[in-house]
Amino acid sequence: MSEFTQLNPAERILMGPGPSTVPARVLKALGSPTMGHLDPDYIEIMDECCGMLRRVFRTTNALTFPVSATGMAGMEAIASNLVERGDEVIVCINGVFGGRMKDIMERCGATVHTVEAEWGDVISGEALGEALESHPKSRLVTIVHAETSTGVHQPLEEVSRMVHDAGMLLVVDAVTSLGGHPVNVDDWEIDAIFSGTQKCLSCPPGLSPVSFSERALEVMDARQSKVQSWYFDVSMLRDYYSGSGARAYHHTAPINMVYGLREGLAMVLEEGLEERFERHRVVHERLRGGLEELGISYIPESSLHTLNCVRIPDGVEDGPVRSRLLREYSIEIGAGLGPFAGKAWRIGLMGHAATRRNVDLLLAALGEVME
Amino acid sequence: MSEFTQLNPAERILMGPGPSTVPARVLKALGSPTMGHLDPDYIEIMDECCGMLRRVFRTTNALTFPVSATGMAGMEAIASNLVERGDEVIVCINGVFGGRMKDIMERCGATVHTVEAEWGDVISGEALGEALESHPKSRLVTIVHAETSTGVHQPLEEVSRMVHDAGMLLVVDAVTSLGGHPVNVDDWEIDAIFSGTQKCLSCPPGLSPVSFSERALEVMDARQSKVQSWYFDVSMLRDYYSGSGARAYHHTAPINMVYGLREGLAMVLEEGLEERFERHRVVHERLRGGLEELGISYIPESSLHTLNCVRIPDGVEDGPVRSRLLREYSIEIGAGLGPFAGKAWRIGLMGHAATRRNVDLLLAALGEVME
Repeated sequence: MSEFTQLNPAERILMGPGPSTVPARVLKALGSPTMGHLDPDYIEIMDECCGMLRRVFRTTNALTFPVSATGMAGMEAIASNLVERGDEVIVCINGVFGGRMKDIMERCGATVHTVEAEWGDVISGEALGEALESHPKSRLVTIVHAETSTGVHQPLEEVSRMVHDAGMLLVVDAVTSLGGHPVNVDDWEIDAIFSGTQKCLSCPPGLSPVSFSERALEVMDARQSKVQSWYFDVSMLRDYYSGSGARAYHHTAPINMVYGLREGLAMVLEEGLEERFERHRVVHERLRGGLEELGISYIPESSLHTLNCVRIPDGVEDGPVRSRLLREYSIEIGAGLGPFAGKAWRIGLMGHAATRRNVDLLLAALGEVME
Repeated sequence: MSEFTQLNPAERILMGPGPSTVPARVLKALGSPTMGHLDPDYIEIMDECCGMLRRVFRTTNALTFPVSATGMAGMEAIASNLVERGDEVIVCINGVFGGRMKDIMERCGATVHTVEAEWGDVISGEALGEALESHPKSRLVTIVHAETSTGVHQPLEEVSRMVHDAGMLLVVDAVTSLGGHPVNVDDWEIDAIFSGTQKCLSCPPGLSPVSFSERALEVMDARQSKVQSWYFDVSMLRDYYSGSGARAYHHTAPINMVYGLREGLAMVLEEGLEERFERHRVVHERLRGGLEELGISYIPESSLHTLNCVRIPDGVEDGPVRSRLLREYSIEIGAGLGPFAGKAWRIGLMGHAATRRNVDLLLAALGEVME
């Protein structure tokens, strides 16, 4: 007899800011037999996985791979590889994740100039333009495509044109958009981008897909100093992920997580990117309509389909509603962060969980527990 | 019809330097439904997992948890949290992983003094004593308990006494020993230690268990500067892993990997630590006897039970033997690293894979393919 109880996690419907519900197919792949990280069969699976990532990122970037850690590690990997102590950078902030990028950039020794917008608003071209003019020596501009803390959907095409006209690199946080909204890395000339597996790719948390443009590689190749992080040093990871010959050992890749990601990406590509984006749009519209009927309005004007940040109605208590959803319906929705704590809910419609069934159930459940 | 083939990884017997074979029970746990990282049910699982880790580390250290990335991330987490730019540290080097610690410490801005031994030898008390005397202002000493590149088993009791007499912290790399050899964190007064899940704990790669003593926490609390890594900043991770009240969000924990780790640790504790160490000793002796009969000798005098670093006999080719083992027997053994490349094999007997059955099969297979 074991002293330990059997592991039996509840089968939640995950409609918070992530992780989102992971389909059985991905869970099954995750539990496949572990191979060695230098096994030729594994290298083949990993190469295939990176190829699939390129298609989802809509890029031909050679250096496209999953960083061996959760989403925020992708942010840190990009910052620590592209920036050297003393560099100037421009960071756009309109929520938690822009603020976090500022913190990470400063830890990398960068001098950070910020472009700010109210929580819930997009970054305006005007504000960005002023920053580009005021800080022309900046190496790069970072911006959040999908602000998970506010649900804001940031358009990137004009931003990209402006940043490149100023001769800088464009760094994008696509944690909550990849696989749910178009993320056109090549068309939008994004130089470095990171995402997470646990949002619209419907995999468990644990990997951070990233992609670097040729321009970004040139900047890294021209570094005067070592990358301050060994674990995230792309100059060493390149030999493992995009080498053509023998793969150099850097660290032991998280084999089973890559199995899961490959399966998640297969499901994305089988569905079709355009079809998938359309599904996210349709269920978002359905949720929006239903919430309005319940007297619940959206905070951002430009809302993501994947993350719906809404005002908690007057007289409704935040904690008890989320608790009852979890206990009585096994549905998770997210709390507000920062200035939105206690004032907003964050309802995720991501990947496998973005279904009419989940929307209708959540609306029915909210109607019950808000009474 | 999908354009993608079904994922069907080969069922390898993993007898290299890691990952080791993962038991079906752990794979099954890994594939359990994903929950949210702030779900009270998940927090309970995580707390239980940290409690089990304390038992395996033989410590009461409050701050004992799995870093959300593979083993090397534990090394980086410890270095970046305990060291500030300009600090002096002493790094013991007798293989790849001591050398890697030096690299990481330097990236953290430390001035590194080294204590070296030949590859295959232990670090001597004499050499350590000289370094402690020559560099009395050093903040800490790092040493590898189980050098995965050479198979050397480093005794730690005298080292610990010497390091603490000098008023420094003791940092230990136990990647290849935890769960296979005694690792007595409290008795040996280790101040910071890291390991990996993919060795003697028989879980997939993806997490790095760490533990910090009260002395180490005091050093971190007295820091003048921010930790250069945001992802590995323990001052923020503490609230999530060892907080008593509400758990603060830092990053999204790799939920499913923690499920797997909990199951792997349950298997370790069900077997019993002493029984497990004894099993590793017995199969190591059996392997050693069988290899000697094949004319294969050990490189280190003080060999780990878990990682057997042996000389490739004269006239035997490295690559073809390992390839045939993989293709004909689906057995993985490891190549030599650095000066041992082409000259040594590294045969792992770790956790679930440390069985008489595997030893006898490997000996039979080696006999065949070396002919």
